[in-house]
Amino acid sequence: MFDKILIANRGEIALRVHRACREMGIRTVAVHSEADANAMHVRLADESVCIGPPPANKSYLNIPAIITAAEVTGAQAIHPGYGFLSENARFAEIVEAHGLAFIGPTAAHIRMMGDKITAKQAVMDAGIPVVPGSEGGVDTYEDAVPIAEKIGYPVLIKAASGGGGRGMKVAETAANLKEAMDTASTEALAAFGDGTVYIEKYLGRPRHIEIQILADTHGNVVHLGERDCSLQRRHQKILEEAPSPALNDDDRKKIGDVVRRAIEAIGYRGVGTIEFLWENGEFYFIEMNTRLQVEHPVTEMITGIDLVREQIRVADGQKLDIKQSDVTFEGWAIECRINAENARTFAPSPGLVTDFHAPGGLGVRLDSALYAGYSIPPYYDSLIGKLIVHGRTREEALLRLRRSLEEMVVGGVETTIPIFLDLLEEADFVSGNYHIRWLEDWLASREN
Amino acid sequence: MFDKILIANRGEIALRVHRACREMGIRTVAVHSEADANAMHVRLADESVCIGPPPANKSYLNIPAIITAAEVTGAQAIHPGYGFLSENARFAEIVEAHGLAFIGPTAAHIRMMGDKITAKQAVMDAGIPVVPGSEGGVDTYEDAVPIAEKIGYPVLIKAASGGGGRGMKVAETAANLKEAMDTASTEALAAFGDGTVYIEKYLGRPRHIEIQILADTHGNVVHLGERDCSLQRRHQKILEEAPSPALNDDDRKKIGDVVRRAIEAIGYRGVGTIEFLWENGEFYFIEMNTRLQVEHPVTEMITGIDLVREQIRVADGQKLDIKQSDVTFEGWAIECRINAENARTFAPSPGLVTDFHAPGGLGVRLDSALYAGYSIPPYYDSLIGKLIVHGRTREEALLRLRRSLEEMVVGGVETTIPIFLDLLEEADFVSGNYHIRWLEDWLASREN
Repeated sequence: MFDKILIANRGEIALRVHRACREMGIRTVAVHSEADANAMHVRLADESVCIGPPPANKSYLNIPAIITAAEVTGAQAIHPGYGFLSENARFAEIVEAHGLAFIGPTAAHIRMMGDKITAKQAVMDAGIPVVPGSEGGVDTYEDAVPIAEKIGYPVLIKAASGGGGRGMKVAETAANLKEAMDTASTEALAAFGDGTVYIEKYLGRPRHIEIQILADTHGNVVHLGERDCSLQRRHQKILEEAPSPALNDDDRKKIGDVVRRAIEAIGYRGVGTIEFLWENGEFYFIEMNTRLQVEHPVTEMITGIDLVREQIRVADGQKLDIKQSDVTFEGWAIECRINAENARTFAPSPGLVTDFHAPGGLGVRLDSALYAGYSIPPYYDSLIGKLIVHGRTREEALLRLRRSLEEMVVGGVETTIPIFLDLLEEADFVSGNYHIRWLEDWLASREN
Repeated sequence: MFDKILIANRGEIALRVHRACREMGIRTVAVHSEADANAMHVRLADESVCIGPPPANKSYLNIPAIITAAEVTGAQAIHPGYGFLSENARFAEIVEAHGLAFIGPTAAHIRMMGDKITAKQAVMDAGIPVVPGSEGGVDTYEDAVPIAEKIGYPVLIKAASGGGGRGMKVAETAANLKEAMDTASTEALAAFGDGTVYIEKYLGRPRHIEIQILADTHGNVVHLGERDCSLQRRHQKILEEAPSPALNDDDRKKIGDVVRRAIEAIGYRGVGTIEFLWENGEFYFIEMNTRLQVEHPVTEMITGIDLVREQIRVADGQKLDIKQSDVTFEGWAIECRINAENARTFAPSPGLVTDFHAPGGLGVRLDSALYAGYSIPPYYDSLIGKLIVHGRTREEALLRLRRSLEEMVVGGVETTIPIFLDLLEEADFVSGNYHIRWLEDWLASREN
């Protein structure tokens, strides 16, 4: 097993990886920008190396500086966390070319899943459901009818050269398919100089449901159930839960088995997430994330499995010591991403944290690199902590979430804590009845 | 259900009870001494009432002041926490005489278990194993021989009127029974003016293992497994774990069933703990605690059951919603009692907490009423926090314990954190091979 790992990240995720290393008896090397010299991930690591000034492209994205830091400290492996270099195939290659282990998938798999077209083809071939649609452009209404019938209404007519919603029309039923096609094509021609349109199934109020997988280099794959990440603002998740309020045990087993077999077929290694849109009981592939995700703790809380530990073990070539039949789901977990932002405008609020108090007690986990006296630099993502609660039921988790949000103190900066307290007053959220457009609608309604 | 509960305690346990109330939608009334006006249990409660100056007998033990506080705030129930009035049968009676619910057992059960003789008789009658011995004094060597044979060697000869170890001798085998009896009797006569001795089984290196039970007022009882609390200094537990390294599933089921049937027979209500000494696979009753215990979180961590919530539900007359078959044990939990004391001399170290940082991440729970800027008053118990870790295995829990102890920062006062870090270096502790005398021997060896 590695005896020293370099953590090529900052903030709560650097601390998260450090904690797993510490619990495995592995020493850690922190890297940091000049702005992060006093960060907690630096304070707790066994060693640290300054890799340049902010912004990130001069330090946390500076591949030569990171490789050099690993070499001078004698680290044998690099954990990229999430963001930054975590899905950079070239970085994975360079790490391995220097004789170091990259704690993540192969560069080939990162590349495959990083490209929307190859990713979709790869997962389709492996049996994962994708959004049904026409293969390429549809020229005439007569061609469109059987395709739309096969997909099932409503369908979406999209400009082949399009984007930004122009040349995009919904046909609710067969009766307005012709009109939708004509309008979309005319708009597309006007906007993009190309009237070609194609047809896809229209999802009106889907949920975002993703399946966590874990694979070793010996062909063993387990799925760790789903996370529901439908609460998003500008495609950024703000609250995640596991399990999903929308799935039952059968659904979970069914999609879990499909994903597990697909991951086996693809020959993937490490942790990864298959993201889906979900509507009316059907799953539609969006993309695969080939890294640890921000929201991984909710899965850890209901399975008891330390995902970072498993990542490290897999990178070391060890076999999974978990079989699918060992994976059980206990209770309910909810994570809130707490940002240093104004809770109305979402304007970043960096600066000195004058006061910090973590909530405690039964079923409460805080993943945060904050401490009293820390100054949040203005250069990075505004995530300052993840509050994760676990209860025997969703209801218990929600009650625990409220009381722990009430206990948490972050002084000196603005945070998004008030948003979550308000969310807990919303009947749709409390009943789990939400979809990927719900949060933005709700935020908009609050502004009025 | 109650809508307001008065919490007749302070420190971490007052906060613990407050958290459970908050998660049940129940408002809380804190009571506090003049020294505790800024305590966290006061800051977080919905209302608070000052009930007098320190020391405790003028405030936290001041029954009329507490009853008045409940009456003026309209609380419907009183939770006594542990210590203070929690095992005071008279207090339970007075609470109920004022039309309030006492969140605990009946006064009769508190009284029964508060007296060593009636407690032992009651549990014996209910089928719980006690330390075997002679019934009353043994006059002659000839009488002693068959008794000692029946009990099995080694046996302990004890002065009937004795105490403090005088008039107490161990007979390892039949060969030294006579000598032990004569010596004990002679010493007893000299020390207490009464040479009467009796015989009990001698336990050389027992473990302290206790069984947590939970009973409602409808005759339903569940046991929640055991805690191993063998690490004690001057009869004070300092670290507890669940499950016990010494028991297997069969042992657990067997003693659990015995205890459950006994509690049913006794007609007890609420939470309670049957404490045993355990040696060579046999359990010997010590006493029953008729209250929530300091170490209850380790049971919560392996069962997922919130014991304070259950206490409150039972006090409200509700039926347990847990059957014995629902109780499962997941992983391993260890609690460290962190005191504001010098880690060598155990001298209390009250005063201003200049800095406070809680450990976080997967499997870590902190129950503490500390905050930065809080001043620990000199009047009370020196417990300032309980760090509880949970892992899938004992090994994982131990690794997690070390890394979370390393993360914890308590500035301005001395704490016992270094003791636990040292303990983690001890092979006997790491292997779970310890008994009730082990810690004192180890502490003594460290002094040299």
